[in-house]
Amino acid sequence: MIELFLIGIGTGNPKHLTREATEAIRATDLILIPRKGPGKDDLAGLRRRICQEVITGDTPQLREFDLPKRDTANPDYRAGVDDWHDAIARVWAAEIRAGLPRGAGKVGFLVWGDPSLYDSTLRIAERVTAALPLALQVIPGITSIQALTAGHAIPLNRIGAPVTITTGRRLRDHGWPEGAETVVVMLDAGCAFDVLEPEGIEIWWSAYAGMAEELRLSGPLAEIAPRIAATRARARADHGWIMDIYLMRRRAPA
Amino acid sequence: MIELFLIGIGTGNPKHLTREATEAIRATDLILIPRKGPGKDDLAGLRRRICQEVITGDTPQLREFDLPKRDTANPDYRAGVDDWHDAIARVWAAEIRAGLPRGAGKVGFLVWGDPSLYDSTLRIAERVTAALPLALQVIPGITSIQALTAGHAIPLNRIGAPVTITTGRRLRDHGWPEGAETVVVMLDAGCAFDVLEPEGIEIWWSAYAGMAEELRLSGPLAEIAPRIAATRARARADHGWIMDIYLMRRRAPA
Ligand SMILES: C[S@@+](CC[C@H](N)C(=O)[O-])C[C@H]1O[C@@H](n2cnc3c(N)ncnc32)[C@H](O)[C@@H]1O
Ligand SMILES: C[S@@+](CC[C@H](N)C(=O)[O-])C[C@H]1O[C@@H](n2cnc3c(N)ncnc32)[C@H](O)[C@@H]1O
Repeated sequence: MIELFLIGIGTGNPKHLTREATEAIRATDLILIPRKGPGKDDLAGLRRRICQEVITGDTPQLREFDLPKRDTANPDYRAGVDDWHDAIARVWAAEIRAGLPRGAGKVGFLVWGDPSLYDSTLRIAERVTAALPLALQVIPGITSIQALTAGHAIPLNRIGAPVTITTGRRLRDHGWPEGAETVVVMLDAGCAFDVLEPEGIEIWWSAYAGMAEELRLSGPLAEIAPRIAATRARARADHGWIMDIYLMRRRAPA
Repeated sequence: MIELFLIGIGTGNPKHLTREATEAIRATDLILIPRKGPGKDDLAGLRRRICQEVITGDTPQLREFDLPKRDTANPDYRAGVDDWHDAIARVWAAEIRAGLPRGAGKVGFLVWGDPSLYDSTLRIAERVTAALPLALQVIPGITSIQALTAGHAIPLNRIGAPVTITTGRRLRDHGWPEGAETVVVMLDAGCAFDVLEPEGIEIWWSAYAGMAEELRLSGPLAEIAPRIAATRARARADHGWIMDIYLMRRRAPA
């Protein structure tokens, strides 16, 4: 029997780790750590560092592997992602077989933030299940949404009001979500808020939320948007990568 | 100088506590624990239990106090809540003054789940700031949304798609949120999904998510709704209280 634990580790602050996550890491026989390739390995580095801090004994074994690359030449984006997830699932299955030669044990996979939120790990794990019978367990983690609101010390929602979580791509393609008052935007390749009419919108923006490098800006969108764009470009150039997230609120409809 | 820490503790599983939250509790001089009155004090009990597990030395001091009651006779709901938050803020300020007689130190307040999500603590803390100069810091916590998705081992979002978080009251009054594919419903006094045309909707429901008593049901809404209603009524009668949350997905619009 193989048990697979998808363990949410929070957003880059090792102190985001919950006791449940710490105990789950310690209880595994094998932790799989994907490498994304040169220049993209801050995340592998963080995963390694978390393991080093948490692991006290001989187990788990850490096993690093190279993540297959997505075929960006595929004109059908969705099919390209599907093929890619299949390829990743095959690599996972092979690594699990190699790391658990007796075909039984506990495997852990550390997931940035929470495994449920804009992350493909759960979908890949389901594909692995097709090839290799597995019992799947998810350990929740602090998301970048919590890291954003905690850093700014703001509520996510207005009292009794709804919240929409969306992506930069959707904001750019569809504008302000219908009927929304509070919008959280993730996975923005760059300042999608520029498509909005800024009048009456306030924004709270964080990059590297929860990490030592955390940057925060907030205020009326009209005023702050250019500062976010400049700060973002500079930080990205300095670090070689950026992860940012923002919350916008619009005056409540009358 | 008084520092106020609003510390997210997760949703009832003491193992949801992050290392950051644990260290914040230990670093305070004073933890304030509100009592809501007979029959509603499972939460005060959990807060006490978490403190007992986490605190190793003489500090922090735990200080329990009775929460003022909301004047439910006020016909203006919003004004009633406003007055109530003012009254709570006055009690907090008095308790902080009494617990930190030298007018300086670190005060902690344990918040269910994450302090940003459908919780009044941040708003009350801001009112306290008006009476008592405070530096405010928020420590993120696992939310009931993460506990829900982890328990069911499901993603929150469809790939690249948005998510709407809303309340039972809004679902009941306004129906399915405009344009939404995935809807998370919290603060539902009882089965607001009954107002929906169930065709094509799937639901994942959890009560006491993350706790030993956790209950989960999922499937097509048309089929599962009556089972949720019955399970909910029974659990509520057995425990004397219930907290539940659910996620619904509708077939993507063509
Ligand atoms: C692939 S998603 C993963 C989200 C993750 N599962 C979570 O729970 O936050 C990556 C996106 O999350 C957001 N994000 C993750 N970590 C972040 C951080 N430390 N600071 C700011 N944004 C972050 C950014 O919007 C980024 O584009
Ligand atoms: C006042 S809100 C507080 C939410 C909390 N701050 C959080 O982060 O989850 C209370 C609502 O949260 C949800 N909730 C909180 N804890 C829960 C649990 N353990 N199981 C199911 N739902 C929960 C329920 O919808 C409940 O009505």
